[in-house]
Amino acid sequence: MSFGPVDRRSFLSGGAGAFICTLAGQKIVSDGPEPDLVALSGGIEVPPKVRAAKWRQLPIAAEPEPAPGGQKREYWIVATQARWNIVPTKRDEMMNKKISDKAKFSGYFYREYTENFGAPKGRVSMPGPVLEAETGDTIVVNFRNDLKVPVTMHPHGVHYTPEMDGAYKGKHTDPGGFVQPGKTFRYVWDCREGTEGVWPYHDHGPLDPMPLYKGLFGFLNIRKKGEPRPDVEHYLVFHSLLTASTGLARGFQCINGRAYTGNTPELRAKVGQRVAQYVTAMGNDFHTYHLHGHRWKSAGGRVVDNETVGPADMLTVEFVEDNPGRWFYHCHVFSHLHEGMSGWYIVEP
Amino acid sequence: MSFGPVDRRSFLSGGAGAFICTLAGQKIVSDGPEPDLVALSGGIEVPPKVRAAKWRQLPIAAEPEPAPGGQKREYWIVATQARWNIVPTKRDEMMNKKISDKAKFSGYFYREYTENFGAPKGRVSMPGPVLEAETGDTIVVNFRNDLKVPVTMHPHGVHYTPEMDGAYKGKHTDPGGFVQPGKTFRYVWDCREGTEGVWPYHDHGPLDPMPLYKGLFGFLNIRKKGEPRPDVEHYLVFHSLLTASTGLARGFQCINGRAYTGNTPELRAKVGQRVAQYVTAMGNDFHTYHLHGHRWKSAGGRVVDNETVGPADMLTVEFVEDNPGRWFYHCHVFSHLHEGMSGWYIVEP
Amino acid sequence: MSFGPVDRRSFLSGGAGAFICTLAGQKIVSDGPEPDLVALSGGIEVPPKVRAAKWRQLPIAAEPEPAPGGQKREYWIVATQARWNIVPTKRDEMMNKKISDKAKFSGYFYREYTENFGAPKGRVSMPGPVLEAETGDTIVVNFRNDLKVPVTMHPHGVHYTPEMDGAYKGKHTDPGGFVQPGKTFRYVWDCREGTEGVWPYHDHGPLDPMPLYKGLFGFLNIRKKGEPRPDVEHYLVFHSLLTASTGLARGFQCINGRAYTGNTPELRAKVGQRVAQYVTAMGNDFHTYHLHGHRWKSAGGRVVDNETVGPADMLTVEFVEDNPGRWFYHCHVFSHLHEGMSGWYIVEP
Repeated sequence: MSFGPVDRRSFLSGGAGAFICTLAGQKIVSDGPEPDLVALSGGIEVPPKVRAAKWRQLPIAAEPEPAPGGQKREYWIVATQARWNIVPTKRDEMMNKKISDKAKFSGYFYREYTENFGAPKGRVSMPGPVLEAETGDTIVVNFRNDLKVPVTMHPHGVHYTPEMDGAYKGKHTDPGGFVQPGKTFRYVWDCREGTEGVWPYHDHGPLDPMPLYKGLFGFLNIRKKGEPRPDVEHYLVFHSLLTASTGLARGFQCINGRAYTGNTPELRAKVGQRVAQYVTAMGNDFHTYHLHGHRWKSAGGRVVDNETVGPADMLTVEFVEDNPGRWFYHCHVFSHLHEGMSGWYIVEP
Repeated sequence: MSFGPVDRRSFLSGGAGAFICTLAGQKIVSDGPEPDLVALSGGIEVPPKVRAAKWRQLPIAAEPEPAPGGQKREYWIVATQARWNIVPTKRDEMMNKKISDKAKFSGYFYREYTENFGAPKGRVSMPGPVLEAETGDTIVVNFRNDLKVPVTMHPHGVHYTPEMDGAYKGKHTDPGGFVQPGKTFRYVWDCREGTEGVWPYHDHGPLDPMPLYKGLFGFLNIRKKGEPRPDVEHYLVFHSLLTASTGLARGFQCINGRAYTGNTPELRAKVGQRVAQYVTAMGNDFHTYHLHGHRWKSAGGRVVDNETVGPADMLTVEFVEDNPGRWFYHCHVFSHLHEGMSGWYIVEP
Repeated sequence: MSFGPVDRRSFLSGGAGAFICTLAGQKIVSDGPEPDLVALSGGIEVPPKVRAAKWRQLPIAAEPEPAPGGQKREYWIVATQARWNIVPTKRDEMMNKKISDKAKFSGYFYREYTENFGAPKGRVSMPGPVLEAETGDTIVVNFRNDLKVPVTMHPHGVHYTPEMDGAYKGKHTDPGGFVQPGKTFRYVWDCREGTEGVWPYHDHGPLDPMPLYKGLFGFLNIRKKGEPRPDVEHYLVFHSLLTASTGLARGFQCINGRAYTGNTPELRAKVGQRVAQYVTAMGNDFHTYHLHGHRWKSAGGRVVDNETVGPADMLTVEFVEDNPGRWFYHCHVFSHLHEGMSGWYIVEP
């Protein structure tokens, strides 16, 4: 199977040349050339508050404190670049076929380090590390940018002041919204009552959304204090890796950076376990999440086995496992399914 | 009105050449040539468990039994091919115009037969027959494949073992996931407590999703035992019939296999009746369901008159009829509406 | 930044030449030439009941009366044409860049007048005026069409007879579904118990959806009688202004007729205020609504900060303001965000 210039025109969201964004005057389309982000970022004016920042004196004085009884959950996260293989097995086990397209590229990653940026914890991953807390805690992220372009961490769901939202805002941008190469920023987020849930975090810097399209996303999990944990938790990001973000000849519809069954996460559980699955979407596409052989209650209380997940929506699926076997989970948009968005869920008796 | 090669480029999901799937190495796009599925299926390896299957000895020994007081609801379903007319009136009554495009093609259908495949019950239809049960029952489908290609029946919502999920799983495929031409498979599905609701079923075989795109879908209705039935029930599938699945010069946005008001189902009810409408979507597109002159409570309890339905999502609309007249129901995505996705709902006083 | 013929092909929903509708035999695509609606409307047959209408004798005799204690809320609305600037500041404050594309066009507007069409109340706007009532009231809209093409007002959510639904229905069309240029129609809508909520209204006439794509949409707000009002209410329509509806060289993804932060509505609130935001989508696209630094309860009761809004869906967001600062609200579909669908939300302490 090969994809010539005509073939790949029709892949992915919106088909040929689907618009993604315009950065520093350059229009970027889904199947177009990969832009040189380092060169592009040179054309972006550094906002006044960022220029004036005394990075070594950050954090700002008044950071939110945990509620009485709460904790400061401190993380060391580095944005880094690494090679990544979208289809390591070179096969699609759903359709039992070879995937011979080139699938390695240089991705961007949020990588967790031990205290004081001592050493990386494990390998790079998409999504990045799950940042956990309980209601009443704060999450402190010491974020170092080892990339050659400015990036950020923008959290969903938690409470934060505008300085801590990690969003580029043109000339209103704070340092946390434009973390320059080599700099470290300390984000402090308030996990107060009412922020419970699982939430995405992602880059929202001046090159938005290109660094995210290369892998800069992850999850926060804010547990309601005292609530029992599920026995098993699965974190899934439905997203695409496009020609424009990888430089590859074609795009892929991915789950956690991998495409096709056998490459995407092989989820596991045992009968009797309380299972929670957290699904978000990152990109331009809408998806539906379907799991074979299972059903759950929607937020509104209806029994379902398939739900819509729009960009940055968070779907939480909870059930007690009662059905052993080898099952599929997948996006029920057929073109996404057939571009790689499916995987195994294996339940032991 | 005619659609030349340039015109039809812009029709339907994702526009020109939108990707659907790759089957046996052949890429299939929305407005591309109709693939020869019989030839394609020849290139698909028969999975080991399917090759080894003793079809005459099926069912497997241990099929689930109904709960105490429950019943075995037995159906005889044949997958068959038949001519189908998407626009039988050759008119769109919404826009009061002639639809002169060719609209007949050879579709695939699930067709219900009397006991032991005695005789067909009524004409072919999209969707296929509604398979009904109550919680505590099992549904037994004696499924015979009269097509020239392998197909299956994959149910949503009900409980089933992996052998009964009707899904092609590459080399892990069970016989029920690859029902060969001429063979009969006995699916048994467990409608236990917690599976209540209306659910789609559809092909999920090795040619997925092409047989579905030709018409292989239907509904299960699992009623909570003892709950009163609605007075009127409407079953609606929002889907597209694409050039690639019909061989016609253009695609259509359909409801139950028909396009344009006057061809799509003419729904009916009377004032005072308890009406239930079940809407699903099958394909790559997201839709919204809108009904004029009426409103209902969403699953979350909000009063609505328009709801999003993603691929394989199930929307249940319930209300007591209070508004006589001639009304429209339609998808509120304008391009879908104007490609055929609307119909009459007629309420008598 | 400029957009040549190649560039603009990839803009907006479905990319190049995305289908919108076929009117009077003419196919209209997103980035195609703007059709001459006046000429097109000449080719549309005037339906029998419209031809026979004695416009001066309208309203029809039996119009619904308010419930005991309810009121008749009477509005005078004129459909009118006016110049409109999509990007008045010529800048995008989110990405800190100049938007030099031509952005003025001749839009269609619902404009409120004082009693008996005395004088316009304020300037034209997208959306048109918010029509307010309480449950138990009726809303009476005296609607005069000053455009050169037939248009209507079709309400969502409220109760109305088929004569009052403002929908073109081919040869079944009532006068309110085809309000001819220069004519006045009196719509009466029943805001009975169970219709509470915020709802869109929009054109649904014989040129559907082109007049809507030029600006003919607005909101109804039916408050539950006796319920306290929120302190602040924001009304947002996520929609696109396409080449085909503006005649401009490119399309824009808009909020309330404007594109890009600094042009879209600058929403405001103060800490402690009860804020309600009402978001709908009008067009072919699905969107997600995301607000930085805030979260709310979904209809189903889950804490969220991002929700899907399909065409004509209504999203209601309610929270007590607790977070001062300069925030973004935006669609989280990145291509929409980067084509203009974002804005400021400014919270004072």
